[in-house]
Amino acid sequence: MIRLFVTHDLAPGARLGLNPDQSRYVIAVMRRAPGDALLVFNGRDGEWRAVVAESGKRGAVLQVEAQARPQTQGSDLDLIVAVVKRARLETIVEKACELGVRRIRLVLTERTNPDHVRLPRLNTIATEAAEQTGRIDLPEIFEPVRLAVLLESWAPERRLLFCDEAGDAPPVMDALAGQPKGAWAVLIGPEGGFSPAERARLRSLDQAVPGTLGPRILRADTAAISALTLWQSVCGDWDDRNLMC
Amino acid sequence: MIRLFVTHDLAPGARLGLNPDQSRYVIAVMRRAPGDALLVFNGRDGEWRAVVAESGKRGAVLQVEAQARPQTQGSDLDLIVAVVKRARLETIVEKACELGVRRIRLVLTERTNPDHVRLPRLNTIATEAAEQTGRIDLPEIFEPVRLAVLLESWAPERRLLFCDEAGDAPPVMDALAGQPKGAWAVLIGPEGGFSPAERARLRSLDQAVPGTLGPRILRADTAAISALTLWQSVCGDWDDRNLMC
Repeated sequence: MIRLFVTHDLAPGARLGLNPDQSRYVIAVMRRAPGDALLVFNGRDGEWRAVVAESGKRGAVLQVEAQARPQTQGSDLDLIVAVVKRARLETIVEKACELGVRRIRLVLTERTNPDHVRLPRLNTIATEAAEQTGRIDLPEIFEPVRLAVLLESWAPERRLLFCDEAGDAPPVMDALAGQPKGAWAVLIGPEGGFSPAERARLRSLDQAVPGTLGPRILRADTAAISALTLWQSVCGDWDDRNLMC
Repeated sequence: MIRLFVTHDLAPGARLGLNPDQSRYVIAVMRRAPGDALLVFNGRDGEWRAVVAESGKRGAVLQVEAQARPQTQGSDLDLIVAVVKRARLETIVEKACELGVRRIRLVLTERTNPDHVRLPRLNTIATEAAEQTGRIDLPEIFEPVRLAVLLESWAPERRLLFCDEAGDAPPVMDALAGQPKGAWAVLIGPEGGFSPAERARLRSLDQAVPGTLGPRILRADTAAISALTLWQSVCGDWDDRNLMC
């Protein structure tokens, strides 16, 4: 079933004019015709069943029928990721969306070679990933800030899983076991690693939970997916016992 | 430190003529000069320290000095993966190498839309990933076979983690907890999922261990990385308590 993210308010009987890209996708690529059903969501009103009402030269119009799922949010999980090369950063955004991250915060570190970040492109990737993965909310993506600035105003209740290959940290799965649920962030550094000053600052943060990801060197996109997988398995919604936490 | 996979035998004093691609990388890209050190491995003799001995028009020649690490192998882990679109399959091969897979077996399933598989290209990707990730062995990649054929001759001692989103399987982390170590395979299906007949066949296999990867739909590359991460964390070498198993 086609799922589309729309910006319109969703309610029974609402009519939604799709934008040119979505119209082309629904009509020309997926060959849907008037009367065919699909699903729409806007991140506020849950997921709704809709049908194609018009498919003319001015694009497709949908008519909203009934709510399929009420609005929910996933875990209160931030991914904080150093700006890496564009292709890897795009992969990380797609995968973070599939893995249920609520916010993506881009950071600049001492060893970051900042590539130009195109936030609209990253938002498009996140939207398409949300449509495909079955999410009914979109991750929010923030403009890059310096890591030091982010840590200065760190919220006291948010724990920070910090992948630290240089020290004596336990495996991430062990580091997370027994930790409280609630607000968390996962931090993935640049491919050159953190500087000694950054590591010391991270280690000194009360909320920091250091962990390692095995004996081999992982690229930034692999490290992000692996750390998010372990977090969701131990503290998040991959473990159905955690749904009520 | 530069790491290179070579096919030569490695022993003290051995001289290795690099191929044109490697010569260009070492001399022109990384700007190494005679006397500079790097690391070489061939998958048989461990990892060795070598120095650039010549860097002329006919390419670079290395001289092997001393062994840095003896030959070891990672876990006895196969990744069995349906042939998916080329870009995603290439990502899966790169990530499987970073995540310590020993063999990659490509399979055709009922819902596979087989893209053309270029095994030499996949081997190049695996070699580059091994150089970058610090492995001293290379994963072996096999020509595609039908899934049914692979299952017919399944080795009795090899367990099979099978990601089954359609049933009532437990989360992968729970499915793996308490399982014996030893020989394993992780199976990742095509994006259209397994057919009912394939699921029944997999479920009927004595060695099959079904598990789920959370409430969202994952693309094949994400599912592969997530499942391999959980396997390495519970049964493999990401948990240092398992190193002796």
